[in-house]
This record gives sequence, C-alpha cells and structure tokens, in this order.
Amino acid sequence: MTGERRAWAYLSRVAEPPCRDLAALAARVGPVEAAERVRRGAVPAELSQRTEARRDIDCAAEDLERLDRLGGRLLTPDDQEWPTLAFTAFNGVDLRRHPDGVAPLALWALGGAPADEVAFRAAAVVGTRAATAYGEHVAADLSEGLCERGIAVVSGGAFGIDGAAHRAALAADGCTVAVLAGGPDVPYPAGHSALLHRIHTAGLLVSEYPPGIRPARHRFLVRNRLVAALSGATVVVEAGLRSGAANTAAWARALGRVVCAVPGPVTSSASAGCHALIRGGAELVTRAEEIIEIVGRAGELADKQEHPSSALDDLTDMGKRVYEALPARGVRSVDELSIEAGLPVAQLQGQLTLLELAGLAVRDDGRWRVRRRSK
Amino acid sequence: MTGERRAWAYLSRVAEPPCRDLAALAARVGPVEAAERVRRGAVPAELSQRTEARRDIDCAAEDLERLDRLGGRLLTPDDQEWPTLAFTAFNGVDLRRHPDGVAPLALWALGGAPADEVAFRAAAVVGTRAATAYGEHVAADLSEGLCERGIAVVSGGAFGIDGAAHRAALAADGCTVAVLAGGPDVPYPAGHSALLHRIHTAGLLVSEYPPGIRPARHRFLVRNRLVAALSGATVVVEAGLRSGAANTAAWARALGRVVCAVPGPVTSSASAGCHALIRGGAELVTRAEEIIEIVGRAGELADKQEHPSSALDDLTDMGKRVYEALPARGVRSVDELSIEAGLPVAQLQGQLTLLELAGLAVRDDGRWRVRRRSK
Repeated sequence: MTGERRAWAYLSRVAEPPCRDLAALAARVGPVEAAERVRRGAVPAELSQRTEARRDIDCAAEDLERLDRLGGRLLTPDDQEWPTLAFTAFNGVDLRRHPDGVAPLALWALGGAPADEVAFRAAAVVGTRAATAYGEHVAADLSEGLCERGIAVVSGGAFGIDGAAHRAALAADGCTVAVLAGGPDVPYPAGHSALLHRIHTAGLLVSEYPPGIRPARHRFLVRNRLVAALSGATVVVEAGLRSGAANTAAWARALGRVVCAVPGPVTSSASAGCHALIRGGAELVTRAEEIIEIVGRAGELADKQEHPSSALDDLTDMGKRVYEALPARGVRSVDELSIEAGLPVAQLQGQLTLLELAGLAVRDDGRWRVRRRSK
Repeated sequence: MTGERRAWAYLSRVAEPPCRDLAALAARVGPVEAAERVRRGAVPAELSQRTEARRDIDCAAEDLERLDRLGGRLLTPDDQEWPTLAFTAFNGVDLRRHPDGVAPLALWALGGAPADEVAFRAAAVVGTRAATAYGEHVAADLSEGLCERGIAVVSGGAFGIDGAAHRAALAADGCTVAVLAGGPDVPYPAGHSALLHRIHTAGLLVSEYPPGIRPARHRFLVRNRLVAALSGATVVVEAGLRSGAANTAAWARALGRVVCAVPGPVTSSASAGCHALIRGGAELVTRAEEIIEIVGRAGELADKQEHPSSALDDLTDMGKRVYEALPARGVRSVDELSIEAGLPVAQLQGQLTLLELAGLAVRDDGRWRVRRRSK
C-alpha cells in the first residue's frame, strides 16, 4: 500500500500533465509496475520521451511527507474518494482514454470535503481576473445561491471572479473547491494565501501537481480541464474575448458539460467573452436557480420569475378594447363607445357588464366611465 | 381613382384593425365594391358585426383632405409604393391571409421616405419606455451603426429606447420610420411632438389609423405587428419581463423575422426581458454589424472582432511549455530546463532554438534566459 502510494507520487511528477499514456499504463499494469517500467525506460518511445527528463528524480517519499505535514492526502484512481464520475464524459467515455488525456494521474488534496461527493453536485464559477464590480457582485450572488442549495462551487483561486466566487461560498458556509495550477502547498496568487488557507480549512484544494511545483502559464490551461471536469456545468461570469475562462468553457464543452455564461453590458469588454460564448451556443444564465436546474438533482426546476400583473390581464382582447374606449375623464354613451371601440352595441353591452363586474367600469346615469383602481 | 381612394379611406376607418376579412374582401372585389357592400351590410355575418358600429360614418373625404393638408399620402395595396414584401412572411405566405390579419388595409403616411424601399432594408430597434442610460446609449449606438450602412431604423416613437433610436438615426442623417398607434396627425406621446415632426420631415411616419384616431392601449399591441412586419429583424434593446417590446418580438417571430436582443446587467430589470428572449432562442447582439449581417444584403458579414494578440500566440504548446520553464529572473541550464519543462534535452534544445529565433529567449554563456519584449 505504501509502495503503491509512493509509486503514484513518483508517477505524478515524472511526466508533465496531462499524459494520457502514463495514466493508461498505470491503469493497465498498476502503479508500482508502471513506475518501475518508467524508471527503467521500458516504455514505448513516446512515453519514454515524455518521462526521460525526470525519471531519475524520485522525491515521492519527501512529497508524501510534505503532504502529511499539511494534513493532506493523495487521491488515486484506486481510492474510494476518487471522483470517478468527474473523469467520465457525460456520454460515458472514460476520460482516461480521452485523446487529450483529461483524467489526472492522481490528485494532491487538502481539506475535509470528500472529492467524490463534491464532484457532480458542483458548478464551476469562473471568469477574468480583471473583473468589474458588477462581475464580482454577480459571481458572489450566484455562488451564494448555489451553496444554499447544496451545490459546491469550483473555481481556480485567481483574483477577480474566481476569488469572489470562493469567498461568497465560504461566507454562505457552502462547499468550495479550488483547483490549483501548482503544488498544493504553493499558494498562488500570493495575495490569495489567506483565502486559499480558508478553502483548505472549509472546503477542498486539489492539484495534479506534486508539492513545490510552481504554477506556470501552460499549467493554468491544463488545470482548467480539471475545473471543468469536476463540475456539472461551467458558468463564465465575466471574460474578455481572450481569456482563460473561455478555455475552461471549451474544456467543459469537450467533456459534454453544459457551458453557461452571464451577460453584461455590451459596452463592457469584461463581458465580451460571455456574449461571444452565448452567441456560440452557451446557455445564458442570470440566476443561481437556472444553474441549479442544470446541475441539480432532477426535479429542481427553477421557479418561474414572477411577472407583475394588473387587473386588466384577465380581460379578453375585446374586453380590453372596450375598456380603452372609455374616456380618460368624463363619461361616454353606449353609442359613442360602440363607434370608438368599433363594436356593435349588443356586443359592447356584454363587455361593459363584464367590466362592471370586474370593477373596471361604472354605469353613470345611462352612460359609462372608467373606474380607477387604487394600487 | 378618387373613388378608389375614398373607398380605401372609408374601409380603413370602418373596422377596428386588424380585420383580415375586410382586407381579404377588398383584395377580392376591389375597394369600391367592398365599401359599397359594407355600407349596405351585404357582407358575411362576422364582418357585418365588425363593421356595424361605424358603417354609417363616412368621413373619408374629410380624412383625405386633412391628410392632403399635412402633405401626406394614403398608401394602398394598389400603389407602387405599397411595401408588399413587408406583408409577405419570409416563407412566402401572403400576410393578408394570415389568421391574425397581419397586413393592414391601408397606411396613412407622412414623410418623403418611400415605404417600399425602406421596408426590408430596415431593422426595428425597440424597447421599454423605462429605459436606463445604458439602454438609451446602446439604442443610439446601434441605430447610428445601422444608418451608416443604409439600414432604416423602425420604431414606435415612444419614450425611452424608441426615442433614442429615432433620434440617433436622425442625427446620423439616416432613415427612420415611426409606426404610430393613432392617426398620423396625432403626435403621441405629446412630449415627442417635435421628434415626430422631425421624423415626418426626414423619414417616414406611418399608421393604419385614419386622422384623428387617438392611440389606445390595444392599438399599441396591434401597431407592434407593423413595426415587426416592416423590418427584417427586430432588436429589443431593453425590456422588462412584461413589455410591449416582447410583444413586438413575438410578432416578429410569428412573421418569420429574426428576433434579436441586447444583453445587459443581470441586476437590471430593464434587461430581464431581453435575457428571457435570448434564453428563448432570440439572437444575442452586441453591435450594429451583427444586425446588418441579418438584415443586410448577402455578403455583408460582420467583421470578426479583433482579438488582442501576443508574441506567444504563435508558439506551439511545447514551445509555450519551454518558454514558461525559463526563469522570471536570471538564467537556467539546459538540464534544469529539461526537468522544469518535463522534456528530453533533445526536444528542449529544438524548442529553445525556435524561441531564440522568435526573439523570446536568449542564450547566455551556455544557459538560457527569457527575453522580455517591449510592448
């Protein structure tokens, strides 16, 4: 067992993720044998190339020790807690066999929330670091709404939208998951050290990178696929035309997840990416309920938004026409009303009676006037 | 000819629009015979009921005289200027036979813009009277952009979005059409008298109501179908969940026109109707070009929006990975880079050479450092 853990830790560092061939090998021959073959270079040429540079580095023991000191755990496909569903496309394909190598080899995790329970009762709330006050407000609002209904909020721990989403989830005593682009012990950005610590305490920090690995630009893109995979839907709150959030959305679509985007002012470049996503087929969402409808349990349909109503709503078209024919001030005879409304007298009188019953018209010495209703 | 004009004028007042049966009768037997039959009550029971109240009122001569004094004209299906295409659904159905009676009997028109040329090189820009500064800004912006490309802007002359759209079209020396819910000589709302006068002078005012008819609530809904019919696309800029603009959009959809909506902040109730329309299948639009693509001549495709680009864009994934492996400050050896990037030395060196050629990396005494590019 310890041998297996060490083997997983070794494998998790030996190739830069994602490495489909390595995940497939470990699945086929087990981690210990896979690690042994990699170490010896006894693997197919392509995998050999991918592992050549680091195969002689074995700091698995130190990595696991560091993780233990942090109170973390290494999740592997052998664990009960492994979020199997997250790494299965909605069409049932095992993502370990996905051509882009979606499934991670293992996950370095900190925090009490069980990864398997969290995934698939989760939505990703992501967006630009250059968020506006509007975007941060909406991210917080959606995040709070999701948490209130027991949906975990997954994001990337970045400044801007990500941070607003995480913070609101914590404030709502909800579950939030930050997927890191570096080792679990490398708080990034540094300005979010305290926030990440709170997520560690109350939610879950996960990374496919072993301790000490620093985030690098390409790792953010690679990380985005895990944000998308761990979530039933990915909600982009604000994003420029060119942004990491669009990349997360592309991953979500590729994995058969629903991509949602929040609209904003067309004058705001921070919403331009969201509008482009919606024009490209993403679901426009405005409220947490609409997201819950997508990721939640069956039957949790969003309540219809209330429409303001008025006493006139219940009138037929003909009733409305007669009501409109009543003068704004003063009274009008039946003949005058008949001409104004363009209705024969017989029909008109029937409608006037209905208006009277509805309290909208009053008979006044053989003529008719409108009855204003107090609001 | 004068007899025909008078007959059309009579018919246009005798039934409250829309009245499909009357339009169909006039199309079948001609306006003079149709007027004669209506006057005598020699029409089918339903049509008789619809015309009974007003059939003895004949103010056609006075109506036409009033119109002449205003410098207007009565457009009928017999005229060359009749916008036939506007009253043909995109699927080729003659809207005079539409079950809801879409085609008007005749149009009372003021202004020099020819109705037939305007229609179908036109977009409706509509929305709530309770517009926000944002909505009015966007309406003006879209309207100006449409006019610059020779698209007429059709709207309802109301406060809020309608007014902003008309005003921007006039300011851009474009063509704008106001479809009124009352007689062509009844400026409504009164606060828009000056604006409507300018539209009369520079564009087109049309109404299916004869002179003197005051707008009434049901007439606004009836009028909305003409706004939709006269336009290749209907663009809702701002609308509450319950608004006349949503009614215009419903007409547009029923007529086979494209419904577009402009998104806005999800926190703004003035955009809630637009978001509901988009969720229901309307096209999200952010710029005039996207509307022109719909209503404009074939081939006028919107330019792709420019994406900001960077020198890193042209790198392959592997190139990016090596670039990221370069230290932020100082230098790194090839072996160190190989480990950091997780690439065999041979591959790494190829990538470093490409980075050097691209001006992104510099060789420094056998080691490598990043080369910052000036912006």
